[in-house]
Amino acid sequence: MLQPELKLRRDKIRSLMALQGIDAALITCNANLIYTYGCVVSGYLYLPLHSPALLFFKRPNNIKGEHSFPIRKPEQIVDILKEQGLPTPAKLMLEGDELPFTEYVRLSGLFPDAEIVNGTPIIRQARSIKTDVEIEMFLRAGIAHAKAYEQIPAVYRPGMTDIEFSIEIERLMRLQGNLGIFRVFGRSMEIFMGSVLSGDNAAYPSPYDFALGGQGLDPALPGGANGTPLKEGQAVMVDLGGNFNGYMGDMSRVFSIGKLPEEAYAAHQTCLEIQDKVSSMACPGAVCEDLYQAAVDIAGKAGFADRFMGIGQQAKFIGHGIGLEINEAPVIAPRIKQELEPGMVFALEPKIVIPQVGAVGIENSWVITNEGAEKLTICEEQIIELG
Amino acid sequence: MLQPELKLRRDKIRSLMALQGIDAALITCNANLIYTYGCVVSGYLYLPLHSPALLFFKRPNNIKGEHSFPIRKPEQIVDILKEQGLPTPAKLMLEGDELPFTEYVRLSGLFPDAEIVNGTPIIRQARSIKTDVEIEMFLRAGIAHAKAYEQIPAVYRPGMTDIEFSIEIERLMRLQGNLGIFRVFGRSMEIFMGSVLSGDNAAYPSPYDFALGGQGLDPALPGGANGTPLKEGQAVMVDLGGNFNGYMGDMSRVFSIGKLPEEAYAAHQTCLEIQDKVSSMACPGAVCEDLYQAAVDIAGKAGFADRFMGIGQQAKFIGHGIGLEINEAPVIAPRIKQELEPGMVFALEPKIVIPQVGAVGIENSWVITNEGAEKLTICEEQIIELG
Repeated sequence: MLQPELKLRRDKIRSLMALQGIDAALITCNANLIYTYGCVVSGYLYLPLHSPALLFFKRPNNIKGEHSFPIRKPEQIVDILKEQGLPTPAKLMLEGDELPFTEYVRLSGLFPDAEIVNGTPIIRQARSIKTDVEIEMFLRAGIAHAKAYEQIPAVYRPGMTDIEFSIEIERLMRLQGNLGIFRVFGRSMEIFMGSVLSGDNAAYPSPYDFALGGQGLDPALPGGANGTPLKEGQAVMVDLGGNFNGYMGDMSRVFSIGKLPEEAYAAHQTCLEIQDKVSSMACPGAVCEDLYQAAVDIAGKAGFADRFMGIGQQAKFIGHGIGLEINEAPVIAPRIKQELEPGMVFALEPKIVIPQVGAVGIENSWVITNEGAEKLTICEEQIIELG
Repeated sequence: MLQPELKLRRDKIRSLMALQGIDAALITCNANLIYTYGCVVSGYLYLPLHSPALLFFKRPNNIKGEHSFPIRKPEQIVDILKEQGLPTPAKLMLEGDELPFTEYVRLSGLFPDAEIVNGTPIIRQARSIKTDVEIEMFLRAGIAHAKAYEQIPAVYRPGMTDIEFSIEIERLMRLQGNLGIFRVFGRSMEIFMGSVLSGDNAAYPSPYDFALGGQGLDPALPGGANGTPLKEGQAVMVDLGGNFNGYMGDMSRVFSIGKLPEEAYAAHQTCLEIQDKVSSMACPGAVCEDLYQAAVDIAGKAGFADRFMGIGQQAKFIGHGIGLEINEAPVIAPRIKQELEPGMVFALEPKIVIPQVGAVGIENSWVITNEGAEKLTICEEQIIELG
């Protein structure tokens, strides 16, 4: 990562800190370190409002650079700041929505005279507007993602189960350079690379707040493929995370085993229509809840209200910001008044579940520009017949 | 998961709570919910010392049972406890090392009159002594893990890179039922399924505190394979996580491209000797630091002191407890006075890095019984030549 890019990102955070009178940030969670330091490190980036950032690192032990200091424990940070002639912060922000309670308390204790505030919302706000370099990384990820998806028909074999099909698609993704890891904000949601859902498993409610659920293979990870044999007349929704360079591109495509019932094709076209409508509305200034309502209206008029985004347990969003984590701002959901801004990147995923068939619909990643929404994941969008 | 097993686990936690005068626990982190409730759920298990546990769930929305209550937000828990005639706890434990700061504070606020304490150490202590059912799950995981590893020579092709080889091994693991997800305690360490290290990449220092590092494919995930071409004379250390049922079995094996230098075989035998010595010492009452010292002594006498557990950046442990997460108690490391107890399960992984060759050594999962340490991962331990 080039220094000007890192400086740009740090200054985005600093601007938001200044608005709240925050002197300094102490950043240590992996996604935020990738954002502000360019890579994962075991350590802390100390980001003062008015002077260059300092890195305090534990591992790896071979980091060089004038602003980098090896430490064994965070308590050493205070003395090094003094030696460097830096003032103690009066108002410091820590990653309050991400750091474990005991660690937050320990780090707060380093600065007993400072007011400590939760910096997670500020960092997430900065991260929600992508830089040109970040958008370029999404574009590259989208190309690799599409290359993998284009090979999906070639790895299908009649008689496969959903999990066997998933495993071959995971391999295609890895061979295109996918890092595999699926980063999610918050402690609750977990998934392995993504999900492949077919038949009634697509309607299986999950504890995780993804667009669709699935039973999974084991109660220890109740989401995604569950061993359903892929049979004639079933739809297969492929939704794997597109992490090829740290950025979580997101794209779903639907495949069919033979022909599907007419209703499934109609539902798929409804989802494409929703995508067209919402993406055409998605300009700077558009309000998230309005986009959501437009989607729900189209699904309802087409007669799919009770199958849109699941059956029984329906997801209450149609899109979500993406970045270093899969669930960033903005969220395209009811009661979200946030306005879209240039540089926001999000996944839009209208999906409809057809009983006994599976899920149909579409998901692409989009970036908001001054001209509107631009698609980052270019790949055939119609249902592709396998076999 | 059968109710008697869940009751046994909950009572293990309750016994430790009683020792500290804790009335109740509120459990919501995924690994702890799998342990105490049998599966991941979006919600909270309220575990009183003297009455049955109650589940407050948000997702999935189809949970039934006399002690299960749907909620939209945790604030509803307080009223439901009252309706059920349960007293407000005087001393409540929350998962302080796992819950994000803001969430811990929010949950603390539900019980303004209670003393709130960090329950993570208690739950981890309970989890460190496995039940018979858990040991059985490790045994089954070990069998699946070995079945996948036995097929490794069949997927090697000359000219492969380390990452291409890794991808084929990941696929073998998934086809044996591996859930893929790699659960780690704490916010810092992350890895995708495991690592395949060859050549000098085995000595590459990483920010993550695993036994060995590796550069990885991208600064966003700096660990593991880095695209090294597999060449004649190189060792390949395969160390993939064995999560087939929630339990993180752990096993490493070494493969060679053609023949290795004699020193590599000697180092490998040293690691096997360390495994023999340490596993023979690993009886109930044995002290972790003594096991570590025995390993270091053998490595030192064999002339590998500066290459044991890495070069330059050396891991400061030779083994780690395993369970629902890869890094549980006990840790076999210097200054750890903890004594082994029957039911503890840990991975023992003496490894030596040979410059330009790669890493050799061994890793198996072990359970402590009254008779000593019993191996849970049975698979050929000599270096296997590929090609």
